[in-house]
Amino acid sequence: MSAELIETVPEQRKPGSMQSLPGFRDFLPDDCARRNYIFARWRKVARRYGFLEWEGPPLEATDLYKKKSGAEIVEQLFNFTDKGEREVALRPELTPTLARVVAAHEREFKKPLKWFSIGQFFRYEKQQRGRLREHFQLNCDIIGEKDLAADIELVALCIDVLRAFGLTEKDFVVRISDREFWTDFFRDNNVPAEGWGDLLQVIDKSAREPREKTAEKLGDLAEPVFATLRSGGKSPRLEQLAAGLQARGLADFISIDVGIVRGLAYYTGIVFEAFDRPGKFRAIAGGGRYDNLISQLSDGAVSLPALGFAMGDVVLSELITEIPQAREAMYKAIGNERKIDIYVVIAKEQRRADALAQLQQLRDCKYRVDYPLTPTKVARQFQAAEELGARIALLYGDEWPQVRIKNMATAQQELVSMHELPSHVERILG
Amino acid sequence: MSAELIETVPEQRKPGSMQSLPGFRDFLPDDCARRNYIFARWRKVARRYGFLEWEGPPLEATDLYKKKSGAEIVEQLFNFTDKGEREVALRPELTPTLARVVAAHEREFKKPLKWFSIGQFFRYEKQQRGRLREHFQLNCDIIGEKDLAADIELVALCIDVLRAFGLTEKDFVVRISDREFWTDFFRDNNVPAEGWGDLLQVIDKSAREPREKTAEKLGDLAEPVFATLRSGGKSPRLEQLAAGLQARGLADFISIDVGIVRGLAYYTGIVFEAFDRPGKFRAIAGGGRYDNLISQLSDGAVSLPALGFAMGDVVLSELITEIPQAREAMYKAIGNERKIDIYVVIAKEQRRADALAQLQQLRDCKYRVDYPLTPTKVARQFQAAEELGARIALLYGDEWPQVRIKNMATAQQELVSMHELPSHVERILG
Repeated sequence: MSAELIETVPEQRKPGSMQSLPGFRDFLPDDCARRNYIFARWRKVARRYGFLEWEGPPLEATDLYKKKSGAEIVEQLFNFTDKGEREVALRPELTPTLARVVAAHEREFKKPLKWFSIGQFFRYEKQQRGRLREHFQLNCDIIGEKDLAADIELVALCIDVLRAFGLTEKDFVVRISDREFWTDFFRDNNVPAEGWGDLLQVIDKSAREPREKTAEKLGDLAEPVFATLRSGGKSPRLEQLAAGLQARGLADFISIDVGIVRGLAYYTGIVFEAFDRPGKFRAIAGGGRYDNLISQLSDGAVSLPALGFAMGDVVLSELITEIPQAREAMYKAIGNERKIDIYVVIAKEQRRADALAQLQQLRDCKYRVDYPLTPTKVARQFQAAEELGARIALLYGDEWPQVRIKNMATAQQELVSMHELPSHVERILG
Repeated sequence: MSAELIETVPEQRKPGSMQSLPGFRDFLPDDCARRNYIFARWRKVARRYGFLEWEGPPLEATDLYKKKSGAEIVEQLFNFTDKGEREVALRPELTPTLARVVAAHEREFKKPLKWFSIGQFFRYEKQQRGRLREHFQLNCDIIGEKDLAADIELVALCIDVLRAFGLTEKDFVVRISDREFWTDFFRDNNVPAEGWGDLLQVIDKSAREPREKTAEKLGDLAEPVFATLRSGGKSPRLEQLAAGLQARGLADFISIDVGIVRGLAYYTGIVFEAFDRPGKFRAIAGGGRYDNLISQLSDGAVSLPALGFAMGDVVLSELITEIPQAREAMYKAIGNERKIDIYVVIAKEQRRADALAQLQQLRDCKYRVDYPLTPTKVARQFQAAEELGARIALLYGDEWPQVRIKNMATAQQELVSMHELPSHVERILG
């Protein structure tokens, strides 16, 4: 379920061979720490919901997407012919791969499956200024359960993933709709089924397009469609879904909005998208039911109801940076993760071998330990200890075979013997 | 520093559109758990050494590799022309990207940099039966330090990464060599510098090639080269490196072996490869110094000494599966990681809403909680609790508003009120 890949980034490019390809990011350590923070929270909440992690390949046969993903995805496929004359594509979304894998391995697993995945996705479009061509997504899917309970569980997961970043009901909302609401509507208005897919695309685009353009495309249906969008349609199923989320205490995070249709062609039932409340950013996440996709991709060999959502890293990261409590939580977590435990200060080069022998033991005890690779002034070593966030500095010098242990937070110092050292370190680091 | 991508996997392919592209793996949950186990340990040990994580893009300009990676890598490039007429390649290795990124951002960081990265790499070769076209690698690099201390730190890290999987000096050895040993040798034998690169490739291949073929390529040098390989060359620098590793208690994990040269063209000094002791598998890891690469890729704009190694997931995973204590440690860790904390048993459907309200709170308390999406027999629910490794089952039924809490390990049961539940859960889960 691809949250669209249409993100903007400032045009900052280095000259010559020093730059990455247009639209591809380098993750320097600070960027990578932010990315890992997002991945870790994605993973944690999905596991809390009992979802198991899996992953597909970044490259697939182009056919996998041509059949079912819909025009917008196919137009922007990052596809090419490989050296073996195969038509292949860097994956734009995960759902077709999931359908392929589930169809191939269906008998190996008890249903329903609750699976999640974290990976990179790609698209190519001609106009390119400041647009990314890759992003990372969390994908969460439930396979083999047609009951609305699965839709409720999935929307709850989407909400809780966002809450795990410190985002509240003031910061985001999940808009929920039902494609069957519209197919019922088309049926009531005597629209032949062949036209439903195109009409759904028109309704999907209606919020981003001039009203006249939408009206022209809708023809006779324009009047009733606009009236429905204005009044906010309702259905028993949508009400039941809202009640299920209310029972979990999540009512404030959702709104029923039949204007949400989603661009992908394969959705069949409940669909939803998460947005920031002020509507400043593109969708944070999106998903829905695709009950026919597995059957279609396996030529009818395997038929399983399914639903899922995807959340991209780019809009989420922008939103976290925008919301003070989310930003603070992120920087705090990243700051802590970056810290080392112990810095080994070598005050006398004659003690280097002794210091390194002990450093090896401390690392074996799982501590994060760093030291100067080459002779360095003691003051600069303490400065490095500070910069690296070390909670302990160990000084190896004239006092050997005693080691001076400095608690960097309290500045308290003690002289300890080599064999006392581990217990002192453990006391401070806990 | 690419550990080569030449891995074999059994030829197991599904018919029709249900299969991945040849050489690309699907990671079902069990496979993904093994992969994540490897990633987690890679990350943990690199952090213990004070390395910071970064990541580059999976796609780069083909030129980045054509210049410097050497013939073998370029022949097997997974490259193509993109829709913007750019010559691009799915990355075969990380070092050129690192050199590019460091040259572009050199002023932003204090040297030396200690950086690591975990990502996927690709190659394409015509003959393909059972060969992978992708794998994952840990890359660890130190940038901006020419002292041998950096080489020692890097080899120690490589050893400790393998030790973290429960592998011992009986299971693997790191063979260490020095390209300068050979360039000194060529100089002593009056070989013009232009020929050194080719000769290094011949020596690199000598262990895998018939002796006569090597002899023919070496010509007059055959006799002295074979004599050196037989007697095992020595150099003060290699002895100093061995002494540094001995000081850390790692002497049993290494052997000096000048037959190791490495295939990549850009190495300049110390090079090393890790192998399983019986020599059953291909190299587990490999790396070395590439002091000129950053300068070459930046057209001389930035010059920094550098060194690094890469370790792939495929051979490592085979080795872990082969060695009993490593295999056991892996399955134990994966088994624990897979477990949920609590299974919510809904014995009366009237209690479903109450159960789900409490489930939401338990998940908010960070517990992993699962439940039946639809009405299910109680016995089957307890079976699911068992299968999912739940340590607690909570039963919502006739006793409501009291909940029956079952410790799955001891089979002990208690009836507790809703507000007592959290403390009881915490007592059992700790």
